[in-house]
Amino acid sequence: MKDIGLIGLAVMGQNLALNIARKKYSVSVFNRTPDRTQEFMKNKVKDEEIAAYYDIKSFVESLKKPRKIILMVKAGKPVDEMIQELLPYLDKGDLIIDGGNSYFKDTSRRINELKERGILYLGMGVSGGEAGALHGPSLMPGGSYDAYEMVKEILLKIAAQTEAGPCCTYVGNDSAGHFVKMVHNGIEYAIMQAIAEVYDVLRKVLKLSPEEIGEIFEKWNNGVLNSFLMEISYKIMKYKDKETGKYLVDLILDEAEQKGTGKWTSQTSLDLGIPTPSLNLAVEARTLSFFKEARVELSKKVTKTYPSIKVDKEKVINDLENALLFSVFVSFSQGLWLISEASKAFNYNIDLSEVLRIWKGGCIIRAKILDFLRDIIKENKENVNLLNSEKALSFLMDKIDSIKYITNLTKDFYLPTLVLNSSLDYFLSMIEENLPANLIQAQRDFFGAHTYRRIDKEGIFHTEWEAN
Amino acid sequence: MKDIGLIGLAVMGQNLALNIARKKYSVSVFNRTPDRTQEFMKNKVKDEEIAAYYDIKSFVESLKKPRKIILMVKAGKPVDEMIQELLPYLDKGDLIIDGGNSYFKDTSRRINELKERGILYLGMGVSGGEAGALHGPSLMPGGSYDAYEMVKEILLKIAAQTEAGPCCTYVGNDSAGHFVKMVHNGIEYAIMQAIAEVYDVLRKVLKLSPEEIGEIFEKWNNGVLNSFLMEISYKIMKYKDKETGKYLVDLILDEAEQKGTGKWTSQTSLDLGIPTPSLNLAVEARTLSFFKEARVELSKKVTKTYPSIKVDKEKVINDLENALLFSVFVSFSQGLWLISEASKAFNYNIDLSEVLRIWKGGCIIRAKILDFLRDIIKENKENVNLLNSEKALSFLMDKIDSIKYITNLTKDFYLPTLVLNSSLDYFLSMIEENLPANLIQAQRDFFGAHTYRRIDKEGIFHTEWEAN
Repeated sequence: MKDIGLIGLAVMGQNLALNIARKKYSVSVFNRTPDRTQEFMKNKVKDEEIAAYYDIKSFVESLKKPRKIILMVKAGKPVDEMIQELLPYLDKGDLIIDGGNSYFKDTSRRINELKERGILYLGMGVSGGEAGALHGPSLMPGGSYDAYEMVKEILLKIAAQTEAGPCCTYVGNDSAGHFVKMVHNGIEYAIMQAIAEVYDVLRKVLKLSPEEIGEIFEKWNNGVLNSFLMEISYKIMKYKDKETGKYLVDLILDEAEQKGTGKWTSQTSLDLGIPTPSLNLAVEARTLSFFKEARVELSKKVTKTYPSIKVDKEKVINDLENALLFSVFVSFSQGLWLISEASKAFNYNIDLSEVLRIWKGGCIIRAKILDFLRDIIKENKENVNLLNSEKALSFLMDKIDSIKYITNLTKDFYLPTLVLNSSLDYFLSMIEENLPANLIQAQRDFFGAHTYRRIDKEGIFHTEWEAN
Repeated sequence: MKDIGLIGLAVMGQNLALNIARKKYSVSVFNRTPDRTQEFMKNKVKDEEIAAYYDIKSFVESLKKPRKIILMVKAGKPVDEMIQELLPYLDKGDLIIDGGNSYFKDTSRRINELKERGILYLGMGVSGGEAGALHGPSLMPGGSYDAYEMVKEILLKIAAQTEAGPCCTYVGNDSAGHFVKMVHNGIEYAIMQAIAEVYDVLRKVLKLSPEEIGEIFEKWNNGVLNSFLMEISYKIMKYKDKETGKYLVDLILDEAEQKGTGKWTSQTSLDLGIPTPSLNLAVEARTLSFFKEARVELSKKVTKTYPSIKVDKEKVINDLENALLFSVFVSFSQGLWLISEASKAFNYNIDLSEVLRIWKGGCIIRAKILDFLRDIIKENKENVNLLNSEKALSFLMDKIDSIKYITNLTKDFYLPTLVLNSSLDYFLSMIEENLPANLIQAQRDFFGAHTYRRIDKEGIFHTEWEAN
């Protein structure tokens, strides 16, 4: 009898199964198409105690009771279908763990549907890509605590290990795990876009080669910007295409694809009324990139006149590093604020400092700066967007001239910087006592009698503006 | 027997009923709370042929067959509830027209549900606020053409009249009318926020009084910026509070409220994959404004150091006008693109130039610039975001230095300009052949084996980046 079962042998599922087995747990695997199972067993499995099954019934029957089954299948309908296939063979007290990028509302629904049948269910965010799944991902399980306890030991062992402990914690009730993973990805989109905007300045304003940009990124990666995304970015810059001998990054089509988690993050922040402009515009930037044909056509029809400005290379590089740090901080600020609001709205009961801790290793947004962010939130648990702290404000104010300079410079070179601009505007809005929203309230009251409040007295007011 | 019935006597419903009756149609009215009906009949109705009913049955029985009933009730559950109340008394072939700001997916559902029972249904966007409803709104009816024909004559008469005809047309199938109204509001949010950002520069950089700002807005309203929103903005600026004698705009709390249509526009654009960064950030700006307490607190904790730059007042005012025009154009570009994509995705069959025509009068975003936009789309119906035209490109390129200058200037004064920045970035992205999205694709392939395409050959590629 096996300790745990895993369904879905795409690359993430394969690597997670191997990871579990290498921690000395026995694993049963199943995949909808048997070919892939056979290939996996033949090419990837060596000494690991992994047994393959080719029908659901014998797969389920191979597991110790209460059974624990991890789904690593595509989000959406495939998850529901697999649950339906499993149900006839499961007993009360068995546990299904969805390790895919499921939409958190689907996870809530499944938890409730299965609860009625006595089946436990965890929605678990898994981040780290292929390598993370194999060597130690960041795991974000959410659902009932009883369900978590059933697999706690295994999860803690297979997760990435850091000096602050394993990158796994019980995130919270209900769909808390998938919610946190969704926002993790929203932050990931923003940081990736911010790096891309910085890269654009380095190549188009400073005219640096990918190799030179790689050197700069590598240097940054040895400093405060140390992070997985910085590390892979410098490696990407230096990678030469085997066939042409050219830098591969220069040969890649600039149409960024997306799978939905970034979009969901933006849509959810709009529903919950939490500002996430940087996360939002990172999605828009990908969307804009997708219209390559239109962009090429329009670019031919306009004449860009570059001003004859002298650029101090060292200053630009230094300011880019600061601008990126600013944007990274602000992206975390927005994401954590959103998680905090969701935790209230959906009774998730999430501990933000624990979220930051389990992001320290394994996951795509792991970064040195997370220690700094944890220090800030530990000082004051109510500071859910991290901004209300001397440390945070001086970190950002120290960099504000840099990001102002960069976002001015990019305009001279016709370079869009959606995430850098919105990161700065987010912060400027939050440190501004008087925004011009008083005019908007007046307009709404003028045309729609929507009323307004006043700064000099309490109450709700309406004015007959035309009757002046 | 009355020509038409109207349910819901909030201010919009009252004014619409009066408008219809003044076009010599007889109207039956009903409101859930009888007090409001009595008040309306007593205080507002004079010679108009309007009859009040205090129960649904006699209200319905008072109408000529096939009956035509306009709902002017709150979007959401109240619409469904009212439909349920009406159903027992309706006959096949009767028509319900929802004139509220219903979510388009709700309208699609209702059309289908009622079709099964033989009841016709139109989802009709109504814009123009109180005054529009009374003197002639912009009407955006969608649904089956048969349903439209039943009320076409009335709608054309009560709509705003312009030299290009009445501001009403059959928008398209299914929920096309409410979809177009939703995007109308998304554009409205963006333009209102752009005006607010411009206002912020005038008061905080140029230190002008509301009166002086009102003079500038009034002057602009006599030029290319001529529009309803510009008109009310200058009137707002000049309005003095009766009680204190101060300019009222200075006394209004800067927390902008929202009712959902702007948010839906952003969420829908994310679903349909059309970039609408200006519309999105207009929503974000309202959201940010709402955290007044946090803003006040943070503003006290930072020190803003203003550079000693000399500002040329005339230049700033001129550039602000151009920046606003740029942002207005680009907001329409994004909105129309979204409508066009929805028309394809949902088979609405919408004529964009007709949409622009019916926005010319009555509605909140009515503006002189709509004639220019219509000329552009008439030249080439495929140019759904308006950008691919010599006229459009020279209009925007003529103003690009102005919006660059303004968005740089605002940073020096710590003023966020979310909509101006994202308007510029949207355009810069669309005229850029090579965006840095190639790096994002490389990153995605590095950590998730998500593959990429190349510029030098066809196909889908994956690289083992670590194996260099």
